[in-house]
Amino acid sequence: MRILGIDSSGLVASVAVTDDDVLLGEFTTDYKKTHSTTLMPMLDELIKMLGIDIKTIDAIATAEGPGSFTGLRIGAATVKGLAYALKVPVIAVPTVDAIAYNLYGSKRLICPLMDARRQQAYSGLYRFDETNEFVVKKEQEPEAIKDIIDRINIADEPVTFLGDGVPVFKDYIEKNATVDYDFAPAFCSRQRAGAVASLGKKYFDREFYTSAEEFRPVYLRKSQAEREREEKAGANA
Amino acid sequence: MRILGIDSSGLVASVAVTDDDVLLGEFTTDYKKTHSTTLMPMLDELIKMLGIDIKTIDAIATAEGPGSFTGLRIGAATVKGLAYALKVPVIAVPTVDAIAYNLYGSKRLICPLMDARRQQAYSGLYRFDETNEFVVKKEQEPEAIKDIIDRINIADEPVTFLGDGVPVFKDYIEKNATVDYDFAPAFCSRQRAGAVASLGKKYFDREFYTSAEEFRPVYLRKSQAEREREEKAGANA
Repeated sequence: MRILGIDSSGLVASVAVTDDDVLLGEFTTDYKKTHSTTLMPMLDELIKMLGIDIKTIDAIATAEGPGSFTGLRIGAATVKGLAYALKVPVIAVPTVDAIAYNLYGSKRLICPLMDARRQQAYSGLYRFDETNEFVVKKEQEPEAIKDIIDRINIADEPVTFLGDGVPVFKDYIEKNATVDYDFAPAFCSRQRAGAVASLGKKYFDREFYTSAEEFRPVYLRKSQAEREREEKAGANA
Repeated sequence: MRILGIDSSGLVASVAVTDDDVLLGEFTTDYKKTHSTTLMPMLDELIKMLGIDIKTIDAIATAEGPGSFTGLRIGAATVKGLAYALKVPVIAVPTVDAIAYNLYGSKRLICPLMDARRQQAYSGLYRFDETNEFVVKKEQEPEAIKDIIDRINIADEPVTFLGDGVPVFKDYIEKNATVDYDFAPAFCSRQRAGAVASLGKKYFDREFYTSAEEFRPVYLRKSQAEREREEKAGANA
């Protein structure tokens, strides 16, 4: 089964094609440019370099959110257009789960941190059990960094942090974490469409998928514009 | 420090740029085409998509071998040319080590298998210790699949297999392995230039690097042409 993976939930833009147990190709960037200028050209380059027909794709797996509002909207528009045209299902993978899945087989607790501003991170808690099955110990949600680290200190187990929140919260972690911890190295520390596609395959096998029409990104929070409007309305009330 | 990673040791062609703890970008393909038609165009696309100047690269990390003779030669020629022109050092990373490094933080023994024909694999044995330091338990070498699996059975510990040798030796493993084992999923099962660059950074920090002029690929075996010539000479003697 050939799956196109897409992740534009954060600073990273990433596209990948898997064919069962093989990653046929992957193209990832994480540097300054906006997704509107990278995502489709990267997909086009990847498909061309592979020399495959886009019509051979059987499903599209995408990071559904949370993440940057603009990134999620560009990703959702791209995925909906492609899935509609190709008549294939959409597999919606929680962004934070897919980041954690990067550390396949890890012996430690896995704590992704996506910077959500205001001293908050989109985070969750994950592990791979003894047989390397992926276990969601705590589902993704926006949370104060203090609460995330407090919970980890109480769990009292070694943990690996990863994600674009690491540089933001590194000082806080170094001052406050009381457990053994490390940070994932560059090559496995952020979003990858390959991980989205591989985890998406597991979802598909359990029949967790939807259609181009039904797919919606998951924001988990209101946008900054909505928050500001509400605060203004509150102040004027 | 900005490192260009390159891996063309096997079926995979992969290029990546890391900047300390961040993977700026990566482009990987593993599908039919020969490296002579993919490696430089992929590097060019990656650099263009990132919008960086190739002159900002501080070092080149490459999978030094073992692997396909043609793949290693194309990789070595490319790396030597780039490193000479950019006046940067070359960090030579053992191919099998870099494949194992994919499974950062794994709780299991890691056994990469690169198909080396004739029921042999380029393999080695690796683990991440309690603090997630990477440990080479057995250095890379070509070996009969029987000897590899016998050693793993004697070690009597759970193991994860990965690499392009997995589809080749899967039946043998399923019939003969007596320990718990699994196979790495698609997104982390083969060569990645990002892993080469991340592991290369650790080598560089320990001052293990060389120059464009001094760098040589490591074949670990004679080429098929050499073997055939020797066999012919032996038969004629």
